[in-house]
Amino acid sequence: MVAFAGMAIRDAKKQQTRQALMEAAIDQVAGGRSFASLSLREVTRDAGVVPASFYRHFRDMDALGLALVDETCQQLRRLIRAARSTSVPGDTMLAASVGTFLLFVQTHRAAFQFLTRERHGGSRPVREAIAREVRGFVVDLAVDFARYPHFGKLPREDLEMMASLLVNTVVSALGELLELAADHPDVQGAQARKLTDQLRVIVLGGLAWRPGTRLPAGAGAMPAG
Amino acid sequence: MVAFAGMAIRDAKKQQTRQALMEAAIDQVAGGRSFASLSLREVTRDAGVVPASFYRHFRDMDALGLALVDETCQQLRRLIRAARSTSVPGDTMLAASVGTFLLFVQTHRAAFQFLTRERHGGSRPVREAIAREVRGFVVDLAVDFARYPHFGKLPREDLEMMASLLVNTVVSALGELLELAADHPDVQGAQARKLTDQLRVIVLGGLAWRPGTRLPAGAGAMPAG
Repeated sequence: MVAFAGMAIRDAKKQQTRQALMEAAIDQVAGGRSFASLSLREVTRDAGVVPASFYRHFRDMDALGLALVDETCQQLRRLIRAARSTSVPGDTMLAASVGTFLLFVQTHRAAFQFLTRERHGGSRPVREAIAREVRGFVVDLAVDFARYPHFGKLPREDLEMMASLLVNTVVSALGELLELAADHPDVQGAQARKLTDQLRVIVLGGLAWRPGTRLPAGAGAMPAG
Repeated sequence: MVAFAGMAIRDAKKQQTRQALMEAAIDQVAGGRSFASLSLREVTRDAGVVPASFYRHFRDMDALGLALVDETCQQLRRLIRAARSTSVPGDTMLAASVGTFLLFVQTHRAAFQFLTRERHGGSRPVREAIAREVRGFVVDLAVDFARYPHFGKLPREDLEMMASLLVNTVVSALGELLELAADHPDVQGAQARKLTDQLRVIVLGGLAWRPGTRLPAGAGAMPAG
């Protein structure tokens, strides 16, 4: 009984140290450092543990980076799935998904700063892990698309093209949101409305899309950016 | 006359050193280093000049970063404007703009790796300069939009919302392209087609857009990412 309680305490403590190491890395990156430039020694110092204890939690710094990506994205993915499954398709679902996303970002700001910075950062394993997670969101969304009448008739690659357009738009908005100070509710509101409108434009475009569509000459046509 | 020739040679040499300093920084960042972590000493060493001579070209490292952002983006902006002004609006113009952009990226790969990495990187002045350039592309495009019948009737903020959607989509595609090795023409071709289709979806959505549009319930509706 005493041994069992001792083990539970040890497990909780181990979990706590793991969390402290991850938070130390997140905070450094959110503060402007690149993950690739962080040393194990800095992270353990910030977490208040001796360097040698790092290896009880992670094989190396990249393994810590991967755990960070994994935990933040999996949690968001579950929340977004829940938001989608509990609301009526259409504008209500769009608003619910955007709201869920923005709230989660607000409460995990430093973790998303990490993801945004390291998406194109210097650690290849971390970059690839973030790309895989983004791809996971795209696949989830393409599967959801396929359930709706118009979209269900489109080829899979068209659904993925539109899902990736939508996910990339959310990721871009995330980058802009994180540049704002946390205490700008007005600007945040305006950005949330802009994002929602952009997603509406994409859905409207998707509803008008047929495989092999070309733009009409003249009329509403325009260039690439 | 001799003095004049001497001056011209000195100017050319000065320009050459400036270029070498910028290229040294670009190469380090393209190789995985973060710009904020680069020292003046490293950059001058790679450029083959003594540290003190740095200040004849730039006030500090951030000034070098700003010059990099400025020169790459201004050149691209001129090219894109030219591509737009010389082709017929519609699918042809879209293809011409995408083609111009992809060719420019291919020939300035390391510079775009710098822009992609540092867009959310650790140097605030560089980050803000990149955001200003992106905003410049958005404004250019919104002005172009306004010239076309349907879009000309929309409020300015709707045009900017759509222009920023389009520009962010190009920026996202850029990030994916740069992750590929330079010698993957097949995958690059597939990505170019995907990007072109995504821009078509946006334009189609824009043509269906009216201020205050909401998505229909049920039918083609879907969630946020």
